[in-house]
Amino acid sequence: MTSPTLVSFLAGQEGPWRIDRIAAVTGDSLPAANRLAMTEGPGSGSLAPETPHGWILRGHLSNLRYTTAAEAGLLVAQQEGLHRPHATRAALIPIRKSEAWWNLAQDQRRYLLEEQSHHIAIGMEYLPPIARRLHHSRDLGESFDFLTWFEYAPEHSRLFEDLVRRLRSTEEWSYVDREVDIRLTRA
Amino acid sequence: MTSPTLVSFLAGQEGPWRIDRIAAVTGDSLPAANRLAMTEGPGSGSLAPETPHGWILRGHLSNLRYTTAAEAGLLVAQQEGLHRPHATRAALIPIRKSEAWWNLAQDQRRYLLEEQSHHIAIGMEYLPPIARRLHHSRDLGESFDFLTWFEYAPEHSRLFEDLVRRLRSTEEWSYVDREVDIRLTRA
Repeated sequence: MTSPTLVSFLAGQEGPWRIDRIAAVTGDSLPAANRLAMTEGPGSGSLAPETPHGWILRGHLSNLRYTTAAEAGLLVAQQEGLHRPHATRAALIPIRKSEAWWNLAQDQRRYLLEEQSHHIAIGMEYLPPIARRLHHSRDLGESFDFLTWFEYAPEHSRLFEDLVRRLRSTEEWSYVDREVDIRLTRA
Repeated sequence: MTSPTLVSFLAGQEGPWRIDRIAAVTGDSLPAANRLAMTEGPGSGSLAPETPHGWILRGHLSNLRYTTAAEAGLLVAQQEGLHRPHATRAALIPIRKSEAWWNLAQDQRRYLLEEQSHHIAIGMEYLPPIARRLHHSRDLGESFDFLTWFEYAPEHSRLFEDLVRRLRSTEEWSYVDREVDIRLTRA
């Protein structure tokens, strides 16, 4: 009955998150903005007319695409949700993967992602400090394929840098053809 | 760079396909209509104002979700494309799967779909006579999760009924909570 939940990230002059920096990792960056708001549900995601220079990224909370039941069980047992009071730092990392990635069959993508690059296992090492939520954008005709949102406490900032560095050095990441790294602090 | 191709099925008074019948298999049916047109690309998919009682179903041509590289190789070697002149019969079968299906992990869905229900293998037995194209609708917020379009010659009609009957008797199909069966003839 229910469609996947649509989540919109609105960057402009308003919102509970202050944007500390926006950096292009691969490909084009995104325009500068001061604040960011995350809204959920259909109809979410229009910019106020007074923020003509803002931008919106949208994605769905959707079904698991690679994660096995065993892995999902471990994740659920270890992870904590978003909105923890002490998790005042966040990162929004939109990525797009190449046509070569999307043309691979399911088993080839799974092999690259986990058996070779250990994407799920690496993320799990950083639970529960680094909370994470994945949003799927590719089928919405967006500029990115995925939007990953991370939340963590200031004392785990170095841990987060370590996580990002490890993921970017994987074979899977050679298929990433656009990536922007947005860092935020709860205002 | 390229987003998945959007395909729209427009039912109303116009289009190259005559709708012979629309039957509900599970759940609600769709309104009656005389003709159907299939259009591709962004911006496709608005009904002419003179067809107020028509309907549109939309889906994306997207990446493989369960098919392995070995299976994809066999499919590519055996299948023929749409629009074969002798394939004057078609079926459009929109289905929706239950929340229980979507809450399963990737390996559980793959197991049900193929190792247990042989969905890919059964479809392959009917190649090349029964050509098939899958369109993904779930992430578009549509009423169905998938739209499958089949094309075949009149002399393969009984073969097609056999294929549909076998798929509907699988364990996978117990997760289908809405299905409509639309049969068409090229006008």
